[in-house]
Amino acid sequence: MKFNRLKAEVFRANRDLVRHGLVTLTWGNVSGIDRRLRCMAVKPSGVEYADLAPSNMVLLDLDGARVEGDLNPSSDTKTQLMLYKEFPEIGGVVHTHSLHATAWAQARLPLPCLGTTHADYFHGPVPCTEVITDAQIALDYEEQTGVQITTAFKRIDYREMPAVLVASHGPFTWGESPAAAVYHAFILELVARMNAISLSVNPRIRGVKQTLLDKHFLRKHGKNAYYGQKK
Amino acid sequence: MKFNRLKAEVFRANRDLVRHGLVTLTWGNVSGIDRRLRCMAVKPSGVEYADLAPSNMVLLDLDGARVEGDLNPSSDTKTQLMLYKEFPEIGGVVHTHSLHATAWAQARLPLPCLGTTHADYFHGPVPCTEVITDAQIALDYEEQTGVQITTAFKRIDYREMPAVLVASHGPFTWGESPAAAVYHAFILELVARMNAISLSVNPRIRGVKQTLLDKHFLRKHGKNAYYGQKK
Amino acid sequence: MKFNRLKAEVFRANRDLVRHGLVTLTWGNVSGIDRRLRCMAVKPSGVEYADLAPSNMVLLDLDGARVEGDLNPSSDTKTQLMLYKEFPEIGGVVHTHSLHATAWAQARLPLPCLGTTHADYFHGPVPCTEVITDAQIALDYEEQTGVQITTAFKRIDYREMPAVLVASHGPFTWGESPAAAVYHAFILELVARMNAISLSVNPRIRGVKQTLLDKHFLRKHGKNAYYGQKK
Amino acid sequence: MKFNRLKAEVFRANRDLVRHGLVTLTWGNVSGIDRRLRCMAVKPSGVEYADLAPSNMVLLDLDGARVEGDLNPSSDTKTQLMLYKEFPEIGGVVHTHSLHATAWAQARLPLPCLGTTHADYFHGPVPCTEVITDAQIALDYEEQTGVQITTAFKRIDYREMPAVLVASHGPFTWGESPAAAVYHAFILELVARMNAISLSVNPRIRGVKQTLLDKHFLRKHGKNAYYGQKK
Repeated sequence: MKFNRLKAEVFRANRDLVRHGLVTLTWGNVSGIDRRLRCMAVKPSGVEYADLAPSNMVLLDLDGARVEGDLNPSSDTKTQLMLYKEFPEIGGVVHTHSLHATAWAQARLPLPCLGTTHADYFHGPVPCTEVITDAQIALDYEEQTGVQITTAFKRIDYREMPAVLVASHGPFTWGESPAAAVYHAFILELVARMNAISLSVNPRIRGVKQTLLDKHFLRKHGKNAYYGQKK
Repeated sequence: MKFNRLKAEVFRANRDLVRHGLVTLTWGNVSGIDRRLRCMAVKPSGVEYADLAPSNMVLLDLDGARVEGDLNPSSDTKTQLMLYKEFPEIGGVVHTHSLHATAWAQARLPLPCLGTTHADYFHGPVPCTEVITDAQIALDYEEQTGVQITTAFKRIDYREMPAVLVASHGPFTWGESPAAAVYHAFILELVARMNAISLSVNPRIRGVKQTLLDKHFLRKHGKNAYYGQKK
Repeated sequence: MKFNRLKAEVFRANRDLVRHGLVTLTWGNVSGIDRRLRCMAVKPSGVEYADLAPSNMVLLDLDGARVEGDLNPSSDTKTQLMLYKEFPEIGGVVHTHSLHATAWAQARLPLPCLGTTHADYFHGPVPCTEVITDAQIALDYEEQTGVQITTAFKRIDYREMPAVLVASHGPFTWGESPAAAVYHAFILELVARMNAISLSVNPRIRGVKQTLLDKHFLRKHGKNAYYGQKK
Repeated sequence: MKFNRLKAEVFRANRDLVRHGLVTLTWGNVSGIDRRLRCMAVKPSGVEYADLAPSNMVLLDLDGARVEGDLNPSSDTKTQLMLYKEFPEIGGVVHTHSLHATAWAQARLPLPCLGTTHADYFHGPVPCTEVITDAQIALDYEEQTGVQITTAFKRIDYREMPAVLVASHGPFTWGESPAAAVYHAFILELVARMNAISLSVNPRIRGVKQTLLDKHFLRKHGKNAYYGQKK
């Protein structure tokens, strides 16, 4: 009973991932955490999106042990657990193979900030991890994917950069809630698409200057934000 | 009461912006001016398009002071006010982050006139502004965006070129009415998409010659136009 | 009365042009000819597609004089009349600004035959005309567009190549009937899109060899065709 | 009666090919084999997809002789028969002209494995055949297309690589059943699209290393697979 709210929230976020066109087949998942209950809910592995319901979200404790149900959790669960541990203020994590963000991850390049659409949400280029080493693959592939990500964030504040491209694989995004993580996945895909077009039109284009980046990011985020309506 | 017509017109134009696929999330807005009433109506900032109605359009006088209602106007309002002041024959202004036009703005290149589709509506390459200076960002970002635009039009007639690309940001378009501004935003997006494909197929292609540009623009515009039905 | 069949056929073909996604706004038109009645039917100029009906198709004789009705015919009518005169076996002509075919026309390049999808319908590269001269623009723009096209076909059999790209403008296609001309416009757009992708993936790719081109074209066309069902 | 199950299965797979957006006009087909009954069912040649039904699937014996019905089988039938002979564990074959996979075939390049989306389904780069020789075209075009494919698989295990690009033509895919072959055609198209974007963003990108390729392919395939739910 006490987990129903979390399961419903994670279910809705998974369904919204489909609604936004970010999912093909079963490739993608959203998880959410309840830090007070020390519990994570995640999509079951390989289950069709049409068959999802709040009741078949998989519940795990923060060591990854199953709390409820019989289904296997998403194969990316260990990656997500590591992100919850290392990024203490996030409430939801998304992984997708969305077309353009994944194409950039395959290109093994950070996504440069080419304009204000990007600067409104991501405070700098979206980082791309190093390629996973053979030793990491042999050790524990999914957990080490989490290590790849947190290593890329040693000098980046995850609260101002809610996305990463895992080299040769695809994007992960996060946010204060599962819904916020989905929102960032949506914007990342859009910006990845827009930037590929800019680059095809002008292959010499480079990222915007820091002053413009700061102006737009801080117009929407932090204590001096002035975009939208007062809450 | 006397503003109802303007508010309805601006509401409809905002809704059409969505219908034409030119808006993602809340990124984009249309305003309109009633020059006799010395009043401007504009979309409220950050409000979902699904929640718009004629009644929540924000009314401002031409100094930007609110005439009616509680909502904040679009964050681009100062830019739009400056355009109404500098371009005395326009009745509506649109700003979007539409995919391809924004990609060209991010590429910081004017949109070349590569064919008759473009020449039918824009009498030359669509200009791209200079990148905004740090001093301008510090001074008043939104107002200075208006200055960027009007500076780019020193030697261009805004009546024959109803569009501009603001560098690293996105397109603004205008017209005799809010609906005409939306129409130009739609065509700009289409031409931006078409020209990116032409360029990918033939990277050495340059703009059409002046005689062909004039022929097509003047076939549809001005006193010798002969396209369509007599009105 | 005697023209009703032609008008209905041309109306349906115009409507199918929209259904195939080949038309934006009012840019595009289909005409048809009844060679026995020495009469051509064509879309009225600048009329919205939603407002078309068999009854408002414009009827012209083969000198371009109006036989019925008040509406102006498509601005491309003189081009179409010239094609009917020069290509005696065709029954329908289409002009569009469809996205990818127009992008190739803007690139001022013939569409190379890169594979069997193309070879099944077009017996070689789709030609691109020369850029129209200033003298031609001054003389009679629309008629001279017809001259541009027929000049490009001096050494090409229009029966095996039912399409052309008019440089800096867009495609024209034709066929035995208005419906066949629409069908070719649809395939041209598709091949133009596919070939742009091939070229982006391998910029050094060149057209297929003649033997493969002949095999596929002749598998579907002419007396030894064996594709499909016996009629 | 005894063939009804095979015909229904092949009909459904053909219909799903359309549902997945892999078919334009009549370009594409699925066949299936019942190895116990020594019988193959295939789409009739040139018939509109909307007119397909289980009852008009064409039944052939394994020498290509018609077992039931009057319609001509798909023009690719000889190619498919050769694949069933040479690849003894497959149950279905698909041929399409899907946009991006065909564009790569036209580029005459193998599809490189740039990421885990690809590695999950195809154990290496998807091979592209040699261009068919003039002698092969003269001999028996469709049968020799089968020879092109099987030649490309001399050193590749068809069970770990259920797809091929036929140079200047398009893709063929296969699987344990007609449905599995359609599934692979769908994924091939998606990966072809994604890889073209990666390449446009970073023209110097090369395929992933063998260890990552193995990790992902074997996570989903073979006796140590652990993705999804236990069956």
